[in-house]
Amino acid sequence: MAQQVIRIDCPDETGLVYRITEVLYNHGLNIVSNQEFVDPVTRHFFMRTAFEGVDTTDGIVEDLCQKLSAGANIRQATLEKRPIVILATKESHCLGDLLLRHHYGEVPADVRAVVSNHEALGSLVRRFDIPFHCVSHKGLNRRDHEEELLKVISRYEPAYLVLAKYMRIFSPSFINHFPDRILNIHHSFLPAFVGATPYAQAYERGVKIIGATAHTVTDNLDAGPIIAQDILHVNHSHTAEEMAQAGRDVEKIVLAKALKLMLEERIFIHNGRTIVFD
Amino acid sequence: MAQQVIRIDCPDETGLVYRITEVLYNHGLNIVSNQEFVDPVTRHFFMRTAFEGVDTTDGIVEDLCQKLSAGANIRQATLEKRPIVILATKESHCLGDLLLRHHYGEVPADVRAVVSNHEALGSLVRRFDIPFHCVSHKGLNRRDHEEELLKVISRYEPAYLVLAKYMRIFSPSFINHFPDRILNIHHSFLPAFVGATPYAQAYERGVKIIGATAHTVTDNLDAGPIIAQDILHVNHSHTAEEMAQAGRDVEKIVLAKALKLMLEERIFIHNGRTIVFD
Amino acid sequence: MAQQVIRIDCPDETGLVYRITEVLYNHGLNIVSNQEFVDPVTRHFFMRTAFEGVDTTDGIVEDLCQKLSAGANIRQATLEKRPIVILATKESHCLGDLLLRHHYGEVPADVRAVVSNHEALGSLVRRFDIPFHCVSHKGLNRRDHEEELLKVISRYEPAYLVLAKYMRIFSPSFINHFPDRILNIHHSFLPAFVGATPYAQAYERGVKIIGATAHTVTDNLDAGPIIAQDILHVNHSHTAEEMAQAGRDVEKIVLAKALKLMLEERIFIHNGRTIVFD
Amino acid sequence: MAQQVIRIDCPDETGLVYRITEVLYNHGLNIVSNQEFVDPVTRHFFMRTAFEGVDTTDGIVEDLCQKLSAGANIRQATLEKRPIVILATKESHCLGDLLLRHHYGEVPADVRAVVSNHEALGSLVRRFDIPFHCVSHKGLNRRDHEEELLKVISRYEPAYLVLAKYMRIFSPSFINHFPDRILNIHHSFLPAFVGATPYAQAYERGVKIIGATAHTVTDNLDAGPIIAQDILHVNHSHTAEEMAQAGRDVEKIVLAKALKLMLEERIFIHNGRTIVFD
Repeated sequence: MAQQVIRIDCPDETGLVYRITEVLYNHGLNIVSNQEFVDPVTRHFFMRTAFEGVDTTDGIVEDLCQKLSAGANIRQATLEKRPIVILATKESHCLGDLLLRHHYGEVPADVRAVVSNHEALGSLVRRFDIPFHCVSHKGLNRRDHEEELLKVISRYEPAYLVLAKYMRIFSPSFINHFPDRILNIHHSFLPAFVGATPYAQAYERGVKIIGATAHTVTDNLDAGPIIAQDILHVNHSHTAEEMAQAGRDVEKIVLAKALKLMLEERIFIHNGRTIVFD
Repeated sequence: MAQQVIRIDCPDETGLVYRITEVLYNHGLNIVSNQEFVDPVTRHFFMRTAFEGVDTTDGIVEDLCQKLSAGANIRQATLEKRPIVILATKESHCLGDLLLRHHYGEVPADVRAVVSNHEALGSLVRRFDIPFHCVSHKGLNRRDHEEELLKVISRYEPAYLVLAKYMRIFSPSFINHFPDRILNIHHSFLPAFVGATPYAQAYERGVKIIGATAHTVTDNLDAGPIIAQDILHVNHSHTAEEMAQAGRDVEKIVLAKALKLMLEERIFIHNGRTIVFD
Repeated sequence: MAQQVIRIDCPDETGLVYRITEVLYNHGLNIVSNQEFVDPVTRHFFMRTAFEGVDTTDGIVEDLCQKLSAGANIRQATLEKRPIVILATKESHCLGDLLLRHHYGEVPADVRAVVSNHEALGSLVRRFDIPFHCVSHKGLNRRDHEEELLKVISRYEPAYLVLAKYMRIFSPSFINHFPDRILNIHHSFLPAFVGATPYAQAYERGVKIIGATAHTVTDNLDAGPIIAQDILHVNHSHTAEEMAQAGRDVEKIVLAKALKLMLEERIFIHNGRTIVFD
Repeated sequence: MAQQVIRIDCPDETGLVYRITEVLYNHGLNIVSNQEFVDPVTRHFFMRTAFEGVDTTDGIVEDLCQKLSAGANIRQATLEKRPIVILATKESHCLGDLLLRHHYGEVPADVRAVVSNHEALGSLVRRFDIPFHCVSHKGLNRRDHEEELLKVISRYEPAYLVLAKYMRIFSPSFINHFPDRILNIHHSFLPAFVGATPYAQAYERGVKIIGATAHTVTDNLDAGPIIAQDILHVNHSHTAEEMAQAGRDVEKIVLAKALKLMLEERIFIHNGRTIVFD
């Protein structure tokens, strides 16, 4: 039987954990891990409880609702493989890495399809027997292109979208279809080098480290809540292309890490920041 | 009022958190942070709860004892500045770094004294107006030297001993005076390069990273539970001395980090491993 | 026209660079990069010069030989794609990563074939249209198995062998067929955790960092000269399997980095250490 | 006899190294290390040669001038302890770390004095028997304050100024007194979080890594050529103050590293980027 997770976030108050764990205890849950955090600035409470081995979980969320204030967000999820759709454009490194991990069962996801605005990556995707759809943006305005995308994507009912170097910007309207459920990898350590040519910028600036940032997508481009970041060291002898290669190496590792955190329901978003129970 | 901490570890069983938090709730504690972990292999439970703003904490530990099985370890501590004694030999980098941090209030400790088996560091310590004691091992066997050390150290009633590059090995009898309360920094990433000349060994071996390991001291030399580790990159152009300098830089950062974790009561030791609630 | 490289190593003496660059100048080479190092302990000299745009390089090595002492090692190489053969066993992460990089032209190599002692990875390799050979060791002694391997490998005339998690130990006789030309990735940061179950050992020991080491293969198992190392941070909540996953992530990056260094002729081996001109 | 260094940078042309090393050879230099780099974009050539054991170096620079084009920058320096003046404001971590390293001979510098616009750090500096000058900016406009500073500083004839968390911005006129000779540590990884409250910004943004950047000071605030950068990982549980502490730890290591590079004449500045021969 797969692990299940209950996630709660609400304004903090005395006795919260006691009231919550009373419900869990009364339902006979075998708790595997329990993580809590109270934001010291906003006094907001976050909790992730993983449990296993119950026949039925009927009524847990309802019982929790009764014990907690009206403003509490409570969600229950089963940690089975979640359906995802990956979007990409022309770069292969993040997509290829995810396809390999998926092929060998290293991410708890079911990659239902890969959608791109170019044909370039189709041959790679088909090597892994995953459906590939090219939805070109040529000749379409943003709204029409996104509508075409949505038609293709919705067919697969994804729990999450993963942007594995998808190089187009989404409208707020598109993003609203997947609130806090679009994962992106940015080609630098945000907030530095915002925009489309970060490695040219990084080279010009003469940086000594190259980074990558995984974040969820919000209306505000490149300002989505940060989930994971890492860096590699570079030096003056690295060309812009070699900095980009270092970037690709760190991008794919950071994206895969963030995706695993997301799929395991370890990420809370609050006031533009993430709480990550890793 | 200073924060307080309750630490519990015991074999895991259903409803543990519920029973514990019931006690905390009944005592009206304002919980600031709460961290739990269940070791999936040994099914042992660990919990650290920090709270603040209570007039009296009388009876909490007793009430917890009643609710938990006989094998539970329960400890309450106030996060005020803890008295520590630092031991060092001749190298200044870790000691100097700790003295600076202490001088500017960056570690929640009260450095009561520095004890050394050499005179070399006395001048540095006196610059910071901290008592310095030289207890030379010359002409003494291990037992007698340790007895001399204990006489000096015990005068200061330290909660913890910090070995900031103290280059002598303690007998089990000495260690038993401070069970799990001696912090050491090892001049490499254990378990590689055990022994006294790690940088010469590292140079010979041609390693590309230099590390440091903070651990608690047990009978088994260099096998104490690991609290923190980090590394710096080196290359072929680093001499053994430059590797040692890289080592010194990472050693002092890792030691300071581990000391803070220890002073804040964030470390549990179990089966030779540490659970670190950072 | 592809870049070319001249590599020289010899005992250091006054005027070496002058004499060498005189030869290069007389041949009209357009030098792109020039790196030198003198080992301060052994007084051995290393030099790598990359140049481009010459019609003919006839006679350069001969002229250098005349100018240098008899003990000098001088080698000229063209930085075109070098033929390699990859060996693997059952784990896919390093192999898959190399196949992806190769497919998209990210490594200056021509992967001629993948050879394994198991069938498991055949399906992956065939997805990338690379010849796959299973040479099972079952029922064969080491010598006979290695002979079978050599038969298959030699057909492809590889410049280098890459052990992408090949889990069998080679005899000195096999290694002598490819002196300093076998690249291996070790599942930990050597010299810690030598042997076959490093992650189980790392978990038991409670380490806080997980590393990987790329090295060339010598007779002395796991003691080959180190080319590249890196680490990822882990904590108590990582199971042995999650430590292994962190290990896989760092292994594949380190192996790819070392392979690029090797293919670009940037590595010298001297007294069991590497000089890496990166 | 101390090592000496010759530094050359000029437009690249064929035979440069040959002509240079001919001069060095004719002067009988015993070359210890030799590093060259040609910027592939600007075709500019950089070279650092360290040598030792010569009685006289008269005429080397002149001879080099004759062999090289008029635009060549040629500089000779002796790697003895260079006089430096440190400027700081109120934060102690970088200053204290430098004072400790200096006290134990870990940096090849002679710290002649510490100058601050506040009294706060005077007590620390005096503990190390270094002259301390408070030059308050109160009641002075920038020009007058800088004039006062220059009066104090020039008395010590520093080869370099080190800004160890000096929190005032210099005018171009002040900077011109020390072109490329002022080293600064920035409290974040540039170009992110430019300005005075980087850790508050970093906390708000919810970053997962905290970095530091050492750079030389130019007219353009925070845009000086980058010498060294590094990072530490943080997470949601870090308060802004704990992020600042992480920042302090990485700042002091990065500043000390950059200072050593600068004192050893390993840094070239070209088009706003640095070439660092480490």
